[in-house]
Amino acid sequence: MPTSVPALLAPSAGAPFERGTIERRDLGSHDVLIDIAYAGICHSDIHQARQEWGQAIFPMVPGHEIAGVVAAVGEKVTAHAVGDRVGIGCFVDSCRECENCLAGEEQFCTSGMVATYNGRQYSGEATYGGYSTQIVADENYVLRIPENLALDVAAPLLCAGITTYSPLKHWGAGPGQKVAVVGMGGLGHVAVKIARAMGAEVTVLSQSLSKQEDGLRFGAEHYYATKNEATFHQLRGSFDLILNTVSADLDVDALLGLLRVNGSLVYVGLPEDAQAFSVFSLVRGRRSLAGSNIGGICETQEMLDFCAQHGIGAEIELIGADDVTEAYDRVVASDVRYRFVIDTATIPA
Amino acid sequence: MPTSVPALLAPSAGAPFERGTIERRDLGSHDVLIDIAYAGICHSDIHQARQEWGQAIFPMVPGHEIAGVVAAVGEKVTAHAVGDRVGIGCFVDSCRECENCLAGEEQFCTSGMVATYNGRQYSGEATYGGYSTQIVADENYVLRIPENLALDVAAPLLCAGITTYSPLKHWGAGPGQKVAVVGMGGLGHVAVKIARAMGAEVTVLSQSLSKQEDGLRFGAEHYYATKNEATFHQLRGSFDLILNTVSADLDVDALLGLLRVNGSLVYVGLPEDAQAFSVFSLVRGRRSLAGSNIGGICETQEMLDFCAQHGIGAEIELIGADDVTEAYDRVVASDVRYRFVIDTATIPA
Repeated sequence: MPTSVPALLAPSAGAPFERGTIERRDLGSHDVLIDIAYAGICHSDIHQARQEWGQAIFPMVPGHEIAGVVAAVGEKVTAHAVGDRVGIGCFVDSCRECENCLAGEEQFCTSGMVATYNGRQYSGEATYGGYSTQIVADENYVLRIPENLALDVAAPLLCAGITTYSPLKHWGAGPGQKVAVVGMGGLGHVAVKIARAMGAEVTVLSQSLSKQEDGLRFGAEHYYATKNEATFHQLRGSFDLILNTVSADLDVDALLGLLRVNGSLVYVGLPEDAQAFSVFSLVRGRRSLAGSNIGGICETQEMLDFCAQHGIGAEIELIGADDVTEAYDRVVASDVRYRFVIDTATIPA
Repeated sequence: MPTSVPALLAPSAGAPFERGTIERRDLGSHDVLIDIAYAGICHSDIHQARQEWGQAIFPMVPGHEIAGVVAAVGEKVTAHAVGDRVGIGCFVDSCRECENCLAGEEQFCTSGMVATYNGRQYSGEATYGGYSTQIVADENYVLRIPENLALDVAAPLLCAGITTYSPLKHWGAGPGQKVAVVGMGGLGHVAVKIARAMGAEVTVLSQSLSKQEDGLRFGAEHYYATKNEATFHQLRGSFDLILNTVSADLDVDALLGLLRVNGSLVYVGLPEDAQAFSVFSLVRGRRSLAGSNIGGICETQEMLDFCAQHGIGAEIELIGADDVTEAYDRVVASDVRYRFVIDTATIPA
């Protein structure tokens, strides 16, 4: 018999959050019941709660940056035990049979992975995310959070961390590589920390210099304002990799011009409209334009272990359930340093 | 004292070709004098002779697909000897000092490589290309044409061959890889032959099926018409690499949709206008959009050796000097199978 669990719900597109309850399934033999401690607010939560990314499922309980402690395990669970510190990221299941799942890239599951919220299990039931006090998930989609990583600053790593770690690793960020991070928001500030820990020379390209001090503290060696035209002349042909964490429309050709021969401009920010580029910008210097989307379960675990090893957590503002609706507006206004995290103890009425 | 040499000149932008003479420099100690036997007509010759790619230098002698025989060598030349079968491609010099030159990627020379025609030597003198009977060039920018490769079918390899070989190699075309070639023109037909010889499973994506028989003969296993909407549904998620040899505007998102996870869409065709893409097309499947531009000297030699080993030459229509003006119109109309090559013996008045 499903269990009723307190949650923060968006009753319809763009409506303020309300306290309520959702049902979590009974513990299956391979399931883990998690007492959620913290849930990060990702910009994609806002897009989905406001139904800006196509038809969404309401009521919605967003949240795919989940950190907590195992409260119970199904009889066949071997990966986790009661009391373990664990997390859940952007998906809670995948087909486990396609070439991408078998390659550990479940995010590209050809059947479509099951999103942690605003998705449907293969059985058809809607999924509800981390803005609640408990969640039930298959053990294979639950991550271990290392002891020396506090749960509150670990939560955002489950999306912001893997979203930036995966492309940084895939495109070879490391010693001798010059990496630029475009944008110093929720994704960008984590990208700076991770790229620096990987050994790359990191430059932040932000609209203004208002967060420069933070950027340098997080590990950037250089910090430039993109609203300053001179930046694009000064840095021409400089970078091996540019990671764009911004969802706004940017001048693609101007960014491509900052790449060295064989360099890549990789998008993890998601502008909604079509972007324009000149083929000459690519041909000149064998440059690439690419995109990356979160990461697989195995790589997400690797990222958490890497962050623990290097003392990397997100910079957060801890908020209560009553603050979430306002926090959404502040995220859209880039008025957060650098990630809101909900203390889920404040959710029960 | 410079030598006067017969050549085919475009006196001004878009004007018909005229017979005339140009001056070739005296043989320097590291120079090679080549009796040109054949010169291919590349689509980029037309763009430049018609001044469609910005300010050009007139009179112009196009031609960067040059094959011939060494007639004389400077006193310090060691790489080539009189009687050797040789070729010249898209450039005849580079700075030799920048990181790209040192890496053997002279095509990306940071000082700008010296184009074989419509360029200027570092000394300032204009360069004239292969539509002439002789050329003088530094030995380091002269390629060896293996014995079993006929000079007429080898000439187009100096541009069309390296332009397709380099990205096919860079992006890993080989056994187990599915490669699509967009366009079955001068570049495309050579790409099919090379990709097949590398061991890839090759598909041609052409506007219609009119050249299907040829495509299969050149080594493609599959051939689809892009004007047929069903092609894009049928081939969804199929290819590791798509090499676009077409200069027309194409639907970038539709092509990206044909890529597998981690696949790359690489442009060697050069549409003049900006192209549009959705970032979602890249993010979904960690796909890349890239460009490639000819190749370095060392790789060009490797390509010629590879083609000789696999019996690969261009499919050509041999023409005389009187036919060149008309041939340009036929290239623009895609009315050539598959490359015009000028018999330079017909150039002297």
